[in-house]
Amino acid sequence: MKQSQLFYKTQKNNPRGEVSRNAQLLIRAGYVDKLMAGVYSLLPLGWRVFKKIEQIIREEMNAIGGQELFLPSLQPQEVWQKTDRWNKFDALIYLGFDEEKNMVLGPTHEEIITPIAQKIIGSYKDLPYYVYQFQNKFRNEKRAKSGLLRGREFIMKDLYSFHPNEEDLGEYYEEVKKAYQRIFERCGIGEKTFLTYAGGGAFAKYSHEFQTLTSAGEDLIYICPQCQIAVNEEIIEEQSHQCPECGGRKLKKEKAVEVGNIFKLKTRFSQPFGLKFLDKNGQPQDV
Amino acid sequence: MKQSQLFYKTQKNNPRGEVSRNAQLLIRAGYVDKLMAGVYSLLPLGWRVFKKIEQIIREEMNAIGGQELFLPSLQPQEVWQKTDRWNKFDALIYLGFDEEKNMVLGPTHEEIITPIAQKIIGSYKDLPYYVYQFQNKFRNEKRAKSGLLRGREFIMKDLYSFHPNEEDLGEYYEEVKKAYQRIFERCGIGEKTFLTYAGGGAFAKYSHEFQTLTSAGEDLIYICPQCQIAVNEEIIEEQSHQCPECGGRKLKKEKAVEVGNIFKLKTRFSQPFGLKFLDKNGQPQDV
Repeated sequence: MKQSQLFYKTQKNNPRGEVSRNAQLLIRAGYVDKLMAGVYSLLPLGWRVFKKIEQIIREEMNAIGGQELFLPSLQPQEVWQKTDRWNKFDALIYLGFDEEKNMVLGPTHEEIITPIAQKIIGSYKDLPYYVYQFQNKFRNEKRAKSGLLRGREFIMKDLYSFHPNEEDLGEYYEEVKKAYQRIFERCGIGEKTFLTYAGGGAFAKYSHEFQTLTSAGEDLIYICPQCQIAVNEEIIEEQSHQCPECGGRKLKKEKAVEVGNIFKLKTRFSQPFGLKFLDKNGQPQDV
Repeated sequence: MKQSQLFYKTQKNNPRGEVSRNAQLLIRAGYVDKLMAGVYSLLPLGWRVFKKIEQIIREEMNAIGGQELFLPSLQPQEVWQKTDRWNKFDALIYLGFDEEKNMVLGPTHEEIITPIAQKIIGSYKDLPYYVYQFQNKFRNEKRAKSGLLRGREFIMKDLYSFHPNEEDLGEYYEEVKKAYQRIFERCGIGEKTFLTYAGGGAFAKYSHEFQTLTSAGEDLIYICPQCQIAVNEEIIEEQSHQCPECGGRKLKKEKAVEVGNIFKLKTRFSQPFGLKFLDKNGQPQDV
């Protein structure tokens, strides 16, 4: 296609009311259009870039056994009550078909995939399972001023894995780490992206983030030059300002943005939905 | 991947509460899972089928100059008021970030693409433009009992075209008709799919639907065996039970399902948003 036919228009000046540098540049170059705070259209140029990144991620997810699927955004109250996240999960957008607000717009899909897994998983022979989705997710961000970095509607890849035991989970967790690193390398940000120890939120003591150095980042990380890993500021005190791998104290503080996150959710979601499997002795076990 | 590893499970019996034949079979075969009335998850098998159909449509849309993009589902009140469809468009789902319901979940995207086109289109040299999207759309269907045929959340391909005059629109309209026919042929339903004269809704006297014969269809169409086109029952009286092309009266009544629809929207959406272009003489004209 000729550039003259492309559905885009460049702008010399920054769009009014847009404070985020990434959105300013992407709007001026005709890659995206802003509908409202935290909500952007991806125009043909932006969508093309998106699709290329998506394909890299898809290939790497498939390479570690992931199966792609698509889950609904309309999610009923009852599954969110079951996991005790109704009225608790930060930034939920509530809605209903009628006056009653008895649904949320999916900000994540644990509440949807776990009951499906419960129907599919019977015995230890079924496990493990790895499924993933690329999907628009919705969050009521109070401060949606970071352009595409913190949207109210955004597309995210989520992979959910189901394991017979913690050992199997631990092994797969390491495989996923490597898949993420391959993704960032193939996207050309491998050298600037650091595996980062971070807080575990509601799920665990720690989790692992992937953080990419950028002056636009909202996170601060402490990099160990020896190990090429980092610690998120949120747990640097707990870590006594030491590298969690070599114990070194010469850490370099940098601004970064989170580009990925992996959690060991353990039985946080399988238990509320009664997701169990029969082991070799026919005994029910938590997934 | 081995079938034993596939994330699915077949069921011998029809799922309780599911009256639609298509959903019964797709659930039993492990292609989809039902979350609530009109809302389904596409499991790996179902998603694979979806992706293949999507790719056929994408290729045919690209072949007629279509440019793919992605538009938001969260849509503000003001654009729906501008086109006078707020509180009027059937089946809108209203929501808000706070208590106030000042947004809708996109059931269609004319209100989003037109203001973008208004920013991009300047002169006659820019036209025509054809853009399209594959996207999950949301409708508050009162009677969501037809499985995947009439969902509350579903993925739809929408193409929007912008033209300098009706003649150009008319020519492209014929191209789009052919592209649709190629799509249905490639999907293997070409012989069962009929170009069908239907009502134009709010936009025009007539529109064209594509209707595929099936006993599960909710529409009734009258096929002219001579011309291989059809008339939707909703306008058969107006048509005096005659074929609109040859005038023949030997029409065959069949059950069918709408698989596509094309409209000439003319200036229905460009006018409310002030979408004009400068013609060769520098005069503003409606798109």
